[in-house]
Amino acid sequence: MTTAPTDQERRSRRREGRRPGATTHTGVKPLNNKLPFAEVVSPEGVEQIHQASMRLLKEVGILIVDYPPAARTFQENGAKVEWVEKEVTYPNGDTTQVKGHLVQIDEDTLMHFVRQTPSTFTQLARNPINSLDFGGRNIIFAPVYGPPFVGSLDFGRRQATLEDFRNFSRLTYMAEHLHHNGGTLVEPNDIDVRERHLDMLMAHITLSDKCFMGSVTHADNARDTVTMTEIIFGADAIRQNPATLALINASSPLRFDDRMFGALEVYARARQAVLVTPFLIAGAMSPSTMAATLAQQNAEALFGICYAQMLNPGTPCIYGSFLANIDMRSGAPCFGTPEDALALYAGAQMARRYHLPYRSGGNFTASRIPDAQAGYESAGTIWPTVQANVNFVLHAAGWLEGGLISGYEKFVLDLEMCGMMARFVNGIGLTEDDFAWEAYQETPPGGHFLGATHTMRHYDTAFYSHKVFNMDNYEKWEAEGSVDAYQRANAVYKKMLKEYEAPSLDPAILEELNAFAAQRRAELRERRPRTEWKR
Amino acid sequence: MTTAPTDQERRSRRREGRRPGATTHTGVKPLNNKLPFAEVVSPEGVEQIHQASMRLLKEVGILIVDYPPAARTFQENGAKVEWVEKEVTYPNGDTTQVKGHLVQIDEDTLMHFVRQTPSTFTQLARNPINSLDFGGRNIIFAPVYGPPFVGSLDFGRRQATLEDFRNFSRLTYMAEHLHHNGGTLVEPNDIDVRERHLDMLMAHITLSDKCFMGSVTHADNARDTVTMTEIIFGADAIRQNPATLALINASSPLRFDDRMFGALEVYARARQAVLVTPFLIAGAMSPSTMAATLAQQNAEALFGICYAQMLNPGTPCIYGSFLANIDMRSGAPCFGTPEDALALYAGAQMARRYHLPYRSGGNFTASRIPDAQAGYESAGTIWPTVQANVNFVLHAAGWLEGGLISGYEKFVLDLEMCGMMARFVNGIGLTEDDFAWEAYQETPPGGHFLGATHTMRHYDTAFYSHKVFNMDNYEKWEAEGSVDAYQRANAVYKKMLKEYEAPSLDPAILEELNAFAAQRRAELRERRPRTEWKR
Repeated sequence: MTTAPTDQERRSRRREGRRPGATTHTGVKPLNNKLPFAEVVSPEGVEQIHQASMRLLKEVGILIVDYPPAARTFQENGAKVEWVEKEVTYPNGDTTQVKGHLVQIDEDTLMHFVRQTPSTFTQLARNPINSLDFGGRNIIFAPVYGPPFVGSLDFGRRQATLEDFRNFSRLTYMAEHLHHNGGTLVEPNDIDVRERHLDMLMAHITLSDKCFMGSVTHADNARDTVTMTEIIFGADAIRQNPATLALINASSPLRFDDRMFGALEVYARARQAVLVTPFLIAGAMSPSTMAATLAQQNAEALFGICYAQMLNPGTPCIYGSFLANIDMRSGAPCFGTPEDALALYAGAQMARRYHLPYRSGGNFTASRIPDAQAGYESAGTIWPTVQANVNFVLHAAGWLEGGLISGYEKFVLDLEMCGMMARFVNGIGLTEDDFAWEAYQETPPGGHFLGATHTMRHYDTAFYSHKVFNMDNYEKWEAEGSVDAYQRANAVYKKMLKEYEAPSLDPAILEELNAFAAQRRAELRERRPRTEWKR
Repeated sequence: MTTAPTDQERRSRRREGRRPGATTHTGVKPLNNKLPFAEVVSPEGVEQIHQASMRLLKEVGILIVDYPPAARTFQENGAKVEWVEKEVTYPNGDTTQVKGHLVQIDEDTLMHFVRQTPSTFTQLARNPINSLDFGGRNIIFAPVYGPPFVGSLDFGRRQATLEDFRNFSRLTYMAEHLHHNGGTLVEPNDIDVRERHLDMLMAHITLSDKCFMGSVTHADNARDTVTMTEIIFGADAIRQNPATLALINASSPLRFDDRMFGALEVYARARQAVLVTPFLIAGAMSPSTMAATLAQQNAEALFGICYAQMLNPGTPCIYGSFLANIDMRSGAPCFGTPEDALALYAGAQMARRYHLPYRSGGNFTASRIPDAQAGYESAGTIWPTVQANVNFVLHAAGWLEGGLISGYEKFVLDLEMCGMMARFVNGIGLTEDDFAWEAYQETPPGGHFLGATHTMRHYDTAFYSHKVFNMDNYEKWEAEGSVDAYQRANAVYKKMLKEYEAPSLDPAILEELNAFAAQRRAELRERRPRTEWKR
């Protein structure tokens, strides 16, 4: 363990790390959506869904499993809490155990806390030009989160490793249209599960300088995340603006567990951003109708946000939605469906009702490789995602097989869509120059505009310029080997990895992070309790 | 030539052809869009585009090439017409010839005629249950139009033949989510170009009983189309409701030629529906800015519609848009781009300003095969198409390589998207049953809804049921041969063709159609002038 630096040393190091030219790029900016939001539900419909969710929370309630502190917090703040332990029998005779604290909360109590959530917040990046403003008309893209597998044309599908994680970190850092590192880019299955979070965090911090997400696999892992952000940014700074963002999933329907609420508690107390996301495959974790699914999602998301506000009023929270539907024949989840898109739009309307930043969507597909199905389904999600004005788009690149695979080629294909979306939200310019009067003076009826002065002046910026998609005609395409998009993307991701250069990081900060990680690894390996990092 | 039947005989035959049970299906219904329209331009922006197009029409004008009758019609109705014959030099020194009647028209004169266009109309199908209402909130899907090539996994790309045309007719007839036969499904290159239109029309009429489009390759071919609809429906009936729909392209920028205006004139005088579509690849046939491109499109579309109204007030017309953008590096057209989507949405707003049915979009791609790029680009067009409320969607299935290829597999993959769109426009049900209260009585927090009574009751209809896309997990998918979407679609289209059964057609009508076609073939082969069909 190294000697902890003084406060002054830390400040000095941070200044150094932030000096102009310390990084090679000019910073990522979220999409700023200039378009009207596409909507699918009337204002009355939004109220119906709201009221249904209030009824669910008051009459059915949310079960908190294995985490009495949260039940206590709700009780102290006016909710009705009872211990439930019973067996429930389904119509078909199957039974299920219900055991935990059932929390029932009324609208006034819930909304009193929900209203304390800020409608916008800024997450700090270690390179300050990459800090990100969440909410409003901003749209932030982050890569896929959580797959245990990686996929590529080269090897098909295999278990993901730490090196895969590091590769996706590198690709994310290089991706101009990914604004945020995301979190669990893949599960690094070659690393002991106890200390995996440390390797992932170190990869996020050292291989990129964009914002990143925190670990939620254990309350101690959340504490480790907070400590590492304190090392980078300082303990005070991260309490002014969050330096990490944690994905807290409900174990739907209507249930939260100790793991998720434990992590939520750590982050909320440290005033880090909390993304509360019901995990819904309609037909399984929610009813098969979208109205009920949306009401349930609303109940679960607001319940988690309410908890964060009870713990620490003003904690930045995001209203999350992960919502697909089940294939009623096979039981598999479907993506890019019309039902998913409708729910995505309606979810955005619900989040806006509460003035909360919204997370949903991505480039989803059920397909196992980036084939035509993957393209249709992914585009069928990312277009609604952007038109709904989703503020934080996890899974914007790399997602395959319903989230089980981080695909290398899929990643770079999805980046093309992210780039297109960045153009789309700018809308249509309507200046005098946009009407191109001079071009009609040079170009007669029946002529062409290829050589007009106006066209030449707009040559570089007129249209989105593709990076992976290819417009060659059949003859040229065939002569060059009939390469499909999957093959083309294979070459692109390899080129990116070859050209990767790590952003600079203050050596003193790196040293302290490594020392902290070493302490934690030792504790975890020896199964000793976590000790606070002495600084 | 057979003896022409009497009027009474024809009426009798038609009744027979329309008897219940004469076809094996229950009729196609357009999508009825229950959702708010997605828009991208403010009402002020719509007015700016309108005003710019009025300025183009008044100050720049539209060139009519080789068709003095149209110039006369415009002059007689108040437009300023002058003969122009000059060489224009571009900034780079290239020159171009301009020769024809330049028509300049002011807003009042133009709009006086445009306003006489009906905002909705019904196209007759020979099976009346397949007749279609155009306009309003209806969305009608039709297959790809115009490709000289066909594509398949089996043979790559080759010249299309009449048998290909007939195959796509069969597939269209079978496709539950294609409401309209379309027109030139492929160019039957094995048939003499002079009589090709007769073979295509006979295929549309005999292999399907949905609505179809007319020939526009020559005024006489348009006349042949009208005669054939008269044989099927009767001369009076088709003047009450159009029995065909003709795609009239501007030869953009700001130009119409004798072929298109000649065909338009035939159809308008017979009161058949006219679809006026500027053909714009922005950066080539229009400026590189979307504002100018939209203004030009508006000018061209309204000019063509104005002409139809001058010829025959009340003629059903559709405001058409075919708008892509050029790849500024290669010069190739791009599809599924953000610029295209913006223009598609804005075009819908313009058409609605004039209360005109709108045609745009489809399942567009620049890709040569149905790979991931094709999926992304196609979905990136069809989603905006439907969210913009496009009333007539040509190219909804089969489009590859910028419209040069009718792809067999692409066709069935696109059908999946059409099916999804049919669900999407229904929106979210908000009845008491949709909120599924009973499901929460059976399913406790943390349980699952798979076996709930509510889920079982909605089992069949809850979600869109995929026909080609596949949700299997990796293990099952690999065990079954790692079949991608392209391969899967190959099997599907072959199965469809194998299962195809032609709809019934009154033998007397068929006989008369064949007799008429024989007369025309003889005239065309012997280069004799067209004679009217004696009936």
